[in-house]
Amino acid sequence: MTTPRPAALPALSVNTLARPLVARLLAEADALGVAVHRDERGLCIVDAGVEAPGSVAAGLLVGEICMGGLGRVRLRAGGADWPTWLDVRSSQPVLACLGSQYAGWSLAASKEETGGKKFFALGSGPARALAAKEKLFGELGWRDESDAGVLVLEVDRPPPSVVVDKVLRDCRLAPDGLTLVLTPTSSRAGTTQVVARVLEVAMHKAHELGFALADIVDGAGTAPLPAPSPEGVEAMGRTNDAILYGGRVQLTVRGSDEAARALAQRLPSGNSRDHGRSFAEIFKEVAYDFYKIDPALFAPAEVWVSNVDSGNTWHAGAVDMDLLRRLWLREAQA
Amino acid sequence: MTTPRPAALPALSVNTLARPLVARLLAEADALGVAVHRDERGLCIVDAGVEAPGSVAAGLLVGEICMGGLGRVRLRAGGADWPTWLDVRSSQPVLACLGSQYAGWSLAASKEETGGKKFFALGSGPARALAAKEKLFGELGWRDESDAGVLVLEVDRPPPSVVVDKVLRDCRLAPDGLTLVLTPTSSRAGTTQVVARVLEVAMHKAHELGFALADIVDGAGTAPLPAPSPEGVEAMGRTNDAILYGGRVQLTVRGSDEAARALAQRLPSGNSRDHGRSFAEIFKEVAYDFYKIDPALFAPAEVWVSNVDSGNTWHAGAVDMDLLRRLWLREAQA
Amino acid sequence: MTTPRPAALPALSVNTLARPLVARLLAEADALGVAVHRDERGLCIVDAGVEAPGSVAAGLLVGEICMGGLGRVRLRAGGADWPTWLDVRSSQPVLACLGSQYAGWSLAASKEETGGKKFFALGSGPARALAAKEKLFGELGWRDESDAGVLVLEVDRPPPSVVVDKVLRDCRLAPDGLTLVLTPTSSRAGTTQVVARVLEVAMHKAHELGFALADIVDGAGTAPLPAPSPEGVEAMGRTNDAILYGGRVQLTVRGSDEAARALAQRLPSGNSRDHGRSFAEIFKEVAYDFYKIDPALFAPAEVWVSNVDSGNTWHAGAVDMDLLRRLWLREAQA
Repeated sequence: MTTPRPAALPALSVNTLARPLVARLLAEADALGVAVHRDERGLCIVDAGVEAPGSVAAGLLVGEICMGGLGRVRLRAGGADWPTWLDVRSSQPVLACLGSQYAGWSLAASKEETGGKKFFALGSGPARALAAKEKLFGELGWRDESDAGVLVLEVDRPPPSVVVDKVLRDCRLAPDGLTLVLTPTSSRAGTTQVVARVLEVAMHKAHELGFALADIVDGAGTAPLPAPSPEGVEAMGRTNDAILYGGRVQLTVRGSDEAARALAQRLPSGNSRDHGRSFAEIFKEVAYDFYKIDPALFAPAEVWVSNVDSGNTWHAGAVDMDLLRRLWLREAQA
Repeated sequence: MTTPRPAALPALSVNTLARPLVARLLAEADALGVAVHRDERGLCIVDAGVEAPGSVAAGLLVGEICMGGLGRVRLRAGGADWPTWLDVRSSQPVLACLGSQYAGWSLAASKEETGGKKFFALGSGPARALAAKEKLFGELGWRDESDAGVLVLEVDRPPPSVVVDKVLRDCRLAPDGLTLVLTPTSSRAGTTQVVARVLEVAMHKAHELGFALADIVDGAGTAPLPAPSPEGVEAMGRTNDAILYGGRVQLTVRGSDEAARALAQRLPSGNSRDHGRSFAEIFKEVAYDFYKIDPALFAPAEVWVSNVDSGNTWHAGAVDMDLLRRLWLREAQA
Repeated sequence: MTTPRPAALPALSVNTLARPLVARLLAEADALGVAVHRDERGLCIVDAGVEAPGSVAAGLLVGEICMGGLGRVRLRAGGADWPTWLDVRSSQPVLACLGSQYAGWSLAASKEETGGKKFFALGSGPARALAAKEKLFGELGWRDESDAGVLVLEVDRPPPSVVVDKVLRDCRLAPDGLTLVLTPTSSRAGTTQVVARVLEVAMHKAHELGFALADIVDGAGTAPLPAPSPEGVEAMGRTNDAILYGGRVQLTVRGSDEAARALAQRLPSGNSRDHGRSFAEIFKEVAYDFYKIDPALFAPAEVWVSNVDSGNTWHAGAVDMDLLRRLWLREAQA
């Protein structure tokens, strides 16, 4: 028996599927600690940690919004190692993680354009698939169409109007059809929704390694949720470390065992020459030039690749909770 | 204080309670990777892994449908031993597991009847309780009535019309009142919904051991979710091994401590002479004659029986994750 | 960057937020094993373990009702130590735990008032915030207003009419606006909803230690769920022991590191002179005078206090699963 193989990605609308989740974010704004602003044109901006406090609960919901309603993000408590973990799963990992969640849409504006500070953000979430500006969408042969879209920005201030206008134009949305969710890295919602990318990070590296995306059919993962840091580099470092040293992912694939085994072998972060030190330390060493970091580092610590065409599961890598505890934890008793 | 003891099983309709879950399976078919076919009579067949790919998410939902809406099935990630686990619970374990989920309805058709290959399947899920063909329903003194029913078949092709007609007749359903869900053992949905039977397997063995079913009032369990195997016997073997060697179940009971303790002692799979080897190996040894396997083997590896009338919890058995890892896992690094 | 700090607690109505959960408790009464009584005035009493059997599932739902819809309570299976655990989280821990869940409302009636046995119960859940009779509500500067309220009573008989009338009067509710949920400690629902207080116990002790409540912004915890005991003191003892020796809680706070570290240091139950013996044993030793027990004992075993203003997480304490297993578990095999 060979597994049935669909011709193409299903015609699912991540923006439509995310709509009830966005509605919940707005309806439960007070409980979630987020602030909802609607401008005169009807554009909706959800502040999940800039002026508003945000929350872990908001981050979990934003995580599911980012996955276009095609993934689940849950907080799990317990464990002697670390108190809180995120569990993430998707049975449409290509669309949920790469078609929607991946922070791949570069949104920049110069000083001249903003009339003030220059602006840069990587847009993530469903609206990316409306704009489909990235090369990736061509590879996927899939894009979304919807008259309502939602985009998540890991920023600590609202985007300038020039960027908002570009998003509206590229997504072909009326202002009252767009929701922007702002989650600063240093906020609880920001930290939570980034760690919720543990499966996406594995998907992205699998893609970088040249593994056929259409052959990845299911995925699940987990990573410890660090406390946010008020310091930007440190905050970003922690969310990365959570995945690089604490992340565990299982990908379910089709195809040859050779390909599945090679994927398992090459996927874990331990394959990188930079592995073993905190992301913040590495980032400082390369003078904050992100592109000087070995891309092989961006991966979960431990992986299982299960091939449904052979029934074999290939395992590689290991988490390093001792490193994370050294980085994140202090004993209160002297 | 003695625990209040209800006279009989509650008059709950598992088919009615499953209806919103079935509606979700149909509404989210594309995201779940299942295909919905409706014949000219209105009969609904959900392909969750025959031609359609299906998914783990579909399997989780089918697991809850099988339990007639009276149980929860969740995927939990993490653990150094194995990446994905199912957590199952029910506060109506007799109805959810034995009244509904148990694959107890023999549905056979000869070559003459099908006009082609002979057909055999064990029907599971809510519609069993409409037909109530099994001796078990007499013992329970309970059956369901509903004008909509759902039956799950662990098969790799649609049932022949003679079997469909028998199901309609025995369930007293019009064709447009019946939903059939097909989950091949080798599919992701199939593997998932079978491992979701970890609590049911404990309930069934408790029944075999003669424990008074009305005295089992709550239950919860967990088992590792293996990758499906493309090979039929191996696929079936893995779902069994997941429970026999990786399953943990707590039953909450009433009655005497003697009975509770005896149940705990006799329940785990370790009581079987066949324990210690993979199910596939045992099955081959008995020349694929299911009925030659020691029935005592079909049980979770580790159990806790908590008696609310005494407050005591009796423990027995142990999981053998080393065996499962040897069977299921290969290291990608040579 | 300093974390944004809202001026006051959000204007959330815990009774309004709990309403859909109460509606579910009534709608699913049969499946949950609870009995719903409505008196001639429309007052609704839910028996979750007095005459009705109740269930773990009912206890999970009552746990979320107690938290005023601002928290999640989930059963997690598995673990070699103990089979079932509760995971609890809230991103509004002050309102969910202290404003709503804490059993702080003394409801007493003398023999003369009841015309029979004297009555005493500690009311918990959302309706406390309507009455706002406790000093705590003055400190919070917050109370609820709603024309529907729900109160949970850990009792083994319905409250006398004099107590019901007092609740209605203090909450300014018409009889058909009040739902009373009765969960005896010895019942499954009772044990479950009390262990679901693991986060609340940490919040309450933080308050006792003088930590600024407005600085606690997020929380999560877990504790093992014991089997209920039919004996009252033992039943109460187990729910306490689950938290004191098996409870783990992470509080996310703002403010100085000095305060966060001191909180972590002083929070765990291990700081108490009474720590190390079962609650039932301690309780008997003080001749069942609750107020002679060291209040420092009422706390989770292990805590993490994460300060979002510094990014530091302070850890202290440890669970003692060996003690709980000695207290709760017996091996079925001799």
